[in-house]
Amino acid sequence: MALRNALRNSAKYGFSGLLPQLSSSGHGRVCVSPFLLSQRRNNSTSSKIKVDFDSSTGVAVMRMQSPPVNSLSLDFLTEFSISLEKLEMDKSCRGLIITSSLPKVFSAGLDIMEMYAKSPESCGVFWKAVQEMWLKLYGSNMVTIAAINGSSPAGGCLMSLGCDYRIMAENPRYSIGLNETQLGIVAPFWFKDTMVNTVGHRTTEMALELGLLYSAPEALKIGLVDRLVPEDQVLTTATETMAKWLAIPDHARQITKSMMRKPTIDKLMSNREADIHNFVSFITKDSIQKSLRMYLEMLKKRKG
Amino acid sequence: MALRNALRNSAKYGFSGLLPQLSSSGHGRVCVSPFLLSQRRNNSTSSKIKVDFDSSTGVAVMRMQSPPVNSLSLDFLTEFSISLEKLEMDKSCRGLIITSSLPKVFSAGLDIMEMYAKSPESCGVFWKAVQEMWLKLYGSNMVTIAAINGSSPAGGCLMSLGCDYRIMAENPRYSIGLNETQLGIVAPFWFKDTMVNTVGHRTTEMALELGLLYSAPEALKIGLVDRLVPEDQVLTTATETMAKWLAIPDHARQITKSMMRKPTIDKLMSNREADIHNFVSFITKDSIQKSLRMYLEMLKKRKG
Amino acid sequence: MALRNALRNSAKYGFSGLLPQLSSSGHGRVCVSPFLLSQRRNNSTSSKIKVDFDSSTGVAVMRMQSPPVNSLSLDFLTEFSISLEKLEMDKSCRGLIITSSLPKVFSAGLDIMEMYAKSPESCGVFWKAVQEMWLKLYGSNMVTIAAINGSSPAGGCLMSLGCDYRIMAENPRYSIGLNETQLGIVAPFWFKDTMVNTVGHRTTEMALELGLLYSAPEALKIGLVDRLVPEDQVLTTATETMAKWLAIPDHARQITKSMMRKPTIDKLMSNREADIHNFVSFITKDSIQKSLRMYLEMLKKRKG
Repeated sequence: MALRNALRNSAKYGFSGLLPQLSSSGHGRVCVSPFLLSQRRNNSTSSKIKVDFDSSTGVAVMRMQSPPVNSLSLDFLTEFSISLEKLEMDKSCRGLIITSSLPKVFSAGLDIMEMYAKSPESCGVFWKAVQEMWLKLYGSNMVTIAAINGSSPAGGCLMSLGCDYRIMAENPRYSIGLNETQLGIVAPFWFKDTMVNTVGHRTTEMALELGLLYSAPEALKIGLVDRLVPEDQVLTTATETMAKWLAIPDHARQITKSMMRKPTIDKLMSNREADIHNFVSFITKDSIQKSLRMYLEMLKKRKG
Repeated sequence: MALRNALRNSAKYGFSGLLPQLSSSGHGRVCVSPFLLSQRRNNSTSSKIKVDFDSSTGVAVMRMQSPPVNSLSLDFLTEFSISLEKLEMDKSCRGLIITSSLPKVFSAGLDIMEMYAKSPESCGVFWKAVQEMWLKLYGSNMVTIAAINGSSPAGGCLMSLGCDYRIMAENPRYSIGLNETQLGIVAPFWFKDTMVNTVGHRTTEMALELGLLYSAPEALKIGLVDRLVPEDQVLTTATETMAKWLAIPDHARQITKSMMRKPTIDKLMSNREADIHNFVSFITKDSIQKSLRMYLEMLKKRKG
Repeated sequence: MALRNALRNSAKYGFSGLLPQLSSSGHGRVCVSPFLLSQRRNNSTSSKIKVDFDSSTGVAVMRMQSPPVNSLSLDFLTEFSISLEKLEMDKSCRGLIITSSLPKVFSAGLDIMEMYAKSPESCGVFWKAVQEMWLKLYGSNMVTIAAINGSSPAGGCLMSLGCDYRIMAENPRYSIGLNETQLGIVAPFWFKDTMVNTVGHRTTEMALELGLLYSAPEALKIGLVDRLVPEDQVLTTATETMAKWLAIPDHARQITKSMMRKPTIDKLMSNREADIHNFVSFITKDSIQKSLRMYLEMLKKRKG
């Protein structure tokens, strides 16, 4: 799909989503809750994310509930990482299911408002939070399952790829992929590494160069998700799948997981500052900011 | 399958097998031949392995014949490596087919008795022999074909993966895979590397974390084996396939094989001592020894 | 297919092709145009390659037209690299389609006459030109699409793999693959890396060790090409596909492409001299030269 189409579709979701491309007829969802806005920067009540931990099974369910599209803002990412960290430190919590409380969307990805007309310092702080989310999730000792009950472009796809297993609603209107190039921005090396680890080099090369979004059936075919089930069975299937993973002794599974993922994690760990620097100098370029402004203006028109 | 199931199935095969999970009704096979035991440490007659070399074709057939399940004991591994070395040095031997003389099993993998209640020194000697087997096989200049005429879990799978080509009996009750985590132990990095080279990163990640055993048809589907044929045609198909491989000039094939496999081999070569150390400190841990003891006690009950 | 078959088939194409294995009834195509010969070494008119640039679309079409089989001679490679360099420097040129003007063949690969009975110096110069072709193509900032309207063995396959996308005529008699081992020579590490990046490690291992040529349908199945279309639609499909690729902002696509390919390019860049040295000492070996001589004598007999 051309950039123009990407922008047109995104317009339906207001400021928050980075290329959501959701097939929705929803009107009026573009307003951002004043309550949520007022909570920015000092939110300690996890209002964007709801965590339910079942101590009888050792499994936590994390529900993303940041309307309209679970955009990954700095606040959202901070809450996410703190929630994850808490569960990680709770030895009784062995498994984590991540899903969305919102209709039709898992997460629309990085919040464009964190990247537009911001100081280099703010952009850097934001990017560090994106890194932190991925580092904590991809390296989690828990079994992590993404219950993808809606579209999951860009950062939403990254979050899904950070899990151990991906179950998606079999709705062909839901899509998933790292579509950054469609907006003129670029998935960094660790997004790329995570995708290569999941679907291989060639599929990743085409997917990233073209910014491809895959429908749920296509995503299953290339291995971007592991299983499709009817939308109302995504969470129950995740719970059943979790039981199978938890049948494996934790220490053996954790050592194995670390063996598979540590080289990829180490690569970012030893390049965090350079990666932040790269992101900041790219995103603050006049040409890129101009692209973002055009994108936002188009969104405003759609609202009007 | 849960650990409990794995243990229950393994029980049918006595001490020798590491998670064989064979569907067999065989009774009385659990006894170890006194003759074989008396040969330990100074076996020079290759009684656990029978090698037939056909000088007219340049192809050797290596038959594993160590009842009940071709467990990879120290003696077995030593014989294996010596046999392989001899063939390797014989310039007239260009191809090697590895198969089993026992019913229903190719090899059940590493012999658990070499890891339970042994001194760290013994464990280290054993692990070095496991390394040696893989180094010699994965790096062989000969064309190597695994004629997998039975189940092939754990170390048996590693042996298969060490070959150039894998032909398996199409019996869906036969399974193959690196299922170490199901017993609470862990496949080391070079098992992992070998599997990644064969089926890719993502399939390996799931397979190793869950300790998955694949039925023959599933194994074909993910590329863990290259071809399925009726059980009575495994060896003849291997012989026919060998002829095709031997049609390629040896020097060109060998240089190419080395180019594909040398980086993986070098990784272990430059880390052998550390790898032995890791194995020994892991396997001699109280918690791991306790797992192994519970496993063995369960096997004893089954015998009784 | 055995070496003998490979040689027999190649014979149809005279000196120029390295294992073309084309199913053709063409007679008399083996003569090399005197005009072309007279142009050797100082050709500045791009007579072996015809380039048409459409400034309205920003897309160039490069037609290889060096009878009989578009062998990659030193002159051909030099022209190719110069043409590519010119297009690369022209900012208005954003995409490149590579195809053949000859029937039934895309390119038969490296010209064996550049490797037989030549001085080490000449072999080295030739190999450097092969490297240069690949470095420029695999690292091109343009969108590159191979419109593979005929067979494409060895170097022809490498050229195809250097592009971003491969569309092949769905004629099952056309084949593609890195079949070097069939002639007793060896694809170097960067041929291998390019193929691994495209079809993965295991498929590459088998393909290179056996020197496999895949029919068009087989090539699609393993991902060696991306799409098959009827022969008369190869070029139009390439043009349509190009439009989709050009819909992505150049800078984002280029950064992404570089991220995917730079490690592979850097590996050759930092080993060019050693790679040339390896090639020269291999190809000038008596045994290899003898293989090439036997090959050429067989071709002569076929001609006679």
